[in-house]
Amino acid sequence: MSAPLSFTRPEPPYYAVIISSWPSGEDPEGYAAMSARMAELGESQPGYLGRESLTDADGRDLVVIYYADEESITAWKAHPEHLEAQRLGRDRWYSAYSIEIARVERAYGFRR
Amino acid sequence: MSAPLSFTRPEPPYYAVIISSWPSGEDPEGYAAMSARMAELGESQPGYLGRESLTDADGRDLVVIYYADEESITAWKAHPEHLEAQRLGRDRWYSAYSIEIARVERAYGFRR
Repeated sequence: MSAPLSFTRPEPPYYAVIISSWPSGEDPEGYAAMSARMAELGESQPGYLGRESLTDADGRDLVVIYYADEESITAWKAHPEHLEAQRLGRDRWYSAYSIEIARVERAYGFRR
Repeated sequence: MSAPLSFTRPEPPYYAVIISSWPSGEDPEGYAAMSARMAELGESQPGYLGRESLTDADGRDLVVIYYADEESITAWKAHPEHLEAQRLGRDRWYSAYSIEIARVERAYGFRR
């Protein structure tokens, strides 16, 4: 297997939003539709760079979403449709989540 | 499902090492042994806080390892046994990887 990174990183600094989440198992269709819509809408926000995302066999998600700057993250967090998804997420779709905003200071990689 | 975070975060700032990797498929037993040893050794390093780690069905890994400070990360990167694992990783076990060192500036979470 030889896979590229999901996107080419710019030179640091840039920002990463690290999201660990545990779905509740409630309303899986609604959760899937919200996830797809938020991914689509999130990608269209100013400053969006790309994401790395994995889901394991239990449905647990680990996602890192990259943005050019902190302002882009703050603006996206306050987007009305995103706010509604956040509210429904706490009420319905998630048992738990952790969100961290981090400034990428150094980056390096390797590709065979 | 109701799962806790894999560890309790301290107050920011702290550091995250974000590792996206694609195994080559070569020498899977050696790769598994190295991964287990590096996880064990990494956890014993000064400044280690915890990790979030997922592997998908293709064997692709996304791991975020947390440390108290940047010095801890630099010291662990230069550990002799870790250096040898890094060399073998490039020669044998990985097709590609991306490593980012990021300073966690804000963190919040939710648990039902």
